[in-house]
Amino acid sequence: MLQTAPRHLQIAKVLRAELEKVGIIFSRQLHSDLDDVNALCEHVERYRGKMLRPTLLLLTALAVEGDPCDGSAISPRHRTVATVLEMIHMATLVHDDVLDEADFRRRGATVNSLRGNETAVMLGDYLISNAFHLCSTEGEPSINELLGSVTNTLCEGELLQLSNRENFELDVQTYMEILRRKTAVLVGACCRLGAALSNAPDAMVDAAERFGSHLGVAFQIQDDLLDLLGDLEVVGKSTGRDIATGKLTLPLLLHLQKESEAERKKTITMIRKCDQAGLRQRLEDSGSISAARAEANRLVSEAKNGLSAFEPSSARDLLHSLADAVVDRQA
Amino acid sequence: MLQTAPRHLQIAKVLRAELEKVGIIFSRQLHSDLDDVNALCEHVERYRGKMLRPTLLLLTALAVEGDPCDGSAISPRHRTVATVLEMIHMATLVHDDVLDEADFRRRGATVNSLRGNETAVMLGDYLISNAFHLCSTEGEPSINELLGSVTNTLCEGELLQLSNRENFELDVQTYMEILRRKTAVLVGACCRLGAALSNAPDAMVDAAERFGSHLGVAFQIQDDLLDLLGDLEVVGKSTGRDIATGKLTLPLLLHLQKESEAERKKTITMIRKCDQAGLRQRLEDSGSISAARAEANRLVSEAKNGLSAFEPSSARDLLHSLADAVVDRQA
Repeated sequence: MLQTAPRHLQIAKVLRAELEKVGIIFSRQLHSDLDDVNALCEHVERYRGKMLRPTLLLLTALAVEGDPCDGSAISPRHRTVATVLEMIHMATLVHDDVLDEADFRRRGATVNSLRGNETAVMLGDYLISNAFHLCSTEGEPSINELLGSVTNTLCEGELLQLSNRENFELDVQTYMEILRRKTAVLVGACCRLGAALSNAPDAMVDAAERFGSHLGVAFQIQDDLLDLLGDLEVVGKSTGRDIATGKLTLPLLLHLQKESEAERKKTITMIRKCDQAGLRQRLEDSGSISAARAEANRLVSEAKNGLSAFEPSSARDLLHSLADAVVDRQA
Repeated sequence: MLQTAPRHLQIAKVLRAELEKVGIIFSRQLHSDLDDVNALCEHVERYRGKMLRPTLLLLTALAVEGDPCDGSAISPRHRTVATVLEMIHMATLVHDDVLDEADFRRRGATVNSLRGNETAVMLGDYLISNAFHLCSTEGEPSINELLGSVTNTLCEGELLQLSNRENFELDVQTYMEILRRKTAVLVGACCRLGAALSNAPDAMVDAAERFGSHLGVAFQIQDDLLDLLGDLEVVGKSTGRDIATGKLTLPLLLHLQKESEAERKKTITMIRKCDQAGLRQRLEDSGSISAARAEANRLVSEAKNGLSAFEPSSARDLLHSLADAVVDRQA
């Protein structure tokens, strides 16, 4: 996801090495004496693409360390918690695919499409359970408590979204509250924990969390735009799922709120018919897609401004680039 | 579930009061600022019938205290952990109903039948998350670690069962391994924690866990018998789900393993046709139902024998009666 400038080669190397260690802890934690469980976990590990959440935790910790950066600021606890965060995220992906009835993820078949919803539900549970188990091996209950509270909120966000399926009266404020709960709180926690585990001062820990929260909302808006506008070939996962499952996202909400009653009815009919191409055109014409993009960009700017709480460093530069990449990505 | 003899009135009163406190902690933990989440949780709380798992934890703790018993041995931590165990169990019920495509539970509609699989999946996740969150508020990571390990095993058991759906070659040993993982380990943990939180000596803690494990397997065999033989009216939940979802349980496995090739084929055809009545008769005739019942009874006897690790007391008597009730129950 990141373009690396020459002056950042050293920190990129540190990050790559740390992410590899996270991958090893991930696989080790999920290892079972049952072959079938291992086969399922290996399948899921293929989803592990960007590793955005561990990357954010590690880069935030490195930004606390500052330059010169040899990565000595990364402790075993940073790695364990980074793995826990990725595992929680992976569990939500597996259950999300059940919710969205999606067939493809990261250019591969989803667990639900290959093995049925039942196995996908249980595999997601196995991932959640292992995340909490791994977390508790750190012997620091405050981390368990923080992450338990984060996943409570995450589930509330998903339930709030589910209860608003096909609610054409949904307002933008409630939609933003859904994104805050289902995405931003976890991404915020990655940055908070990265700073906190590096014993950063409280103000810096809070700034890190705010950076992550803003980034999380921007990330989700971009995800929703890709679902609306992208092609399976480019995005690598099923698209058009939001409309197919009655999930109204920002461009659609911005569009609906400025339409006349008669035009609204037409839009709603197109949603019900899953007329993806027609809707794209309609939202493009009304400027709702660029308005949603502008909101994502605004959030990224706000996130980047918050990085001034950190001293200038290579790690801070990379967090900066990462924030840009979140809205520039096509997959 | 329990008949109370006059000499046990005191302890039954203590237990009832404690279970009420557990119910309050349960509701308080799940309370959300979102009305819809609260409505879903209130619905699920109606499933909270027997409260077998908190009962086992509390009774084991009271058996460590011995007579006279005024319940002073029950600490806030006992209550919290008892609530966590019930919440984990409730999460498995909600996800199980998705897996079994069940419509009824405790004489009420299941979440999946009322609100769809998606909501049931997320609500189950909300319960798991809250269970781990509540557990971590105790500030004792070893409990989180034990329960994380228990739920890892529980999910493995469910996955093992799923991968053996419609496997007519499934052997009894693997089936017992499924029960051990998906049911016995959690019930064993209830009794272990009841004793451990009361600072019982190690040998007693281990004996308590063995009691719970045996009871758990017996409980599941009885559950499977009720699914095969019971009526919705009496059992209060959907029956015949095991055959409908290709889940082979003990009576069927015992039957299949002694049949000739030609007879096996007939049985398998009946399973595929979901010929519940025909199968009942066939298994009754071959003695497989009584053989499964005998195995459940044997496990209950073994469980009860293990109670000799405790001094005689009213609480021990109640554990004894509870073990009998597990196989005598019709719901």
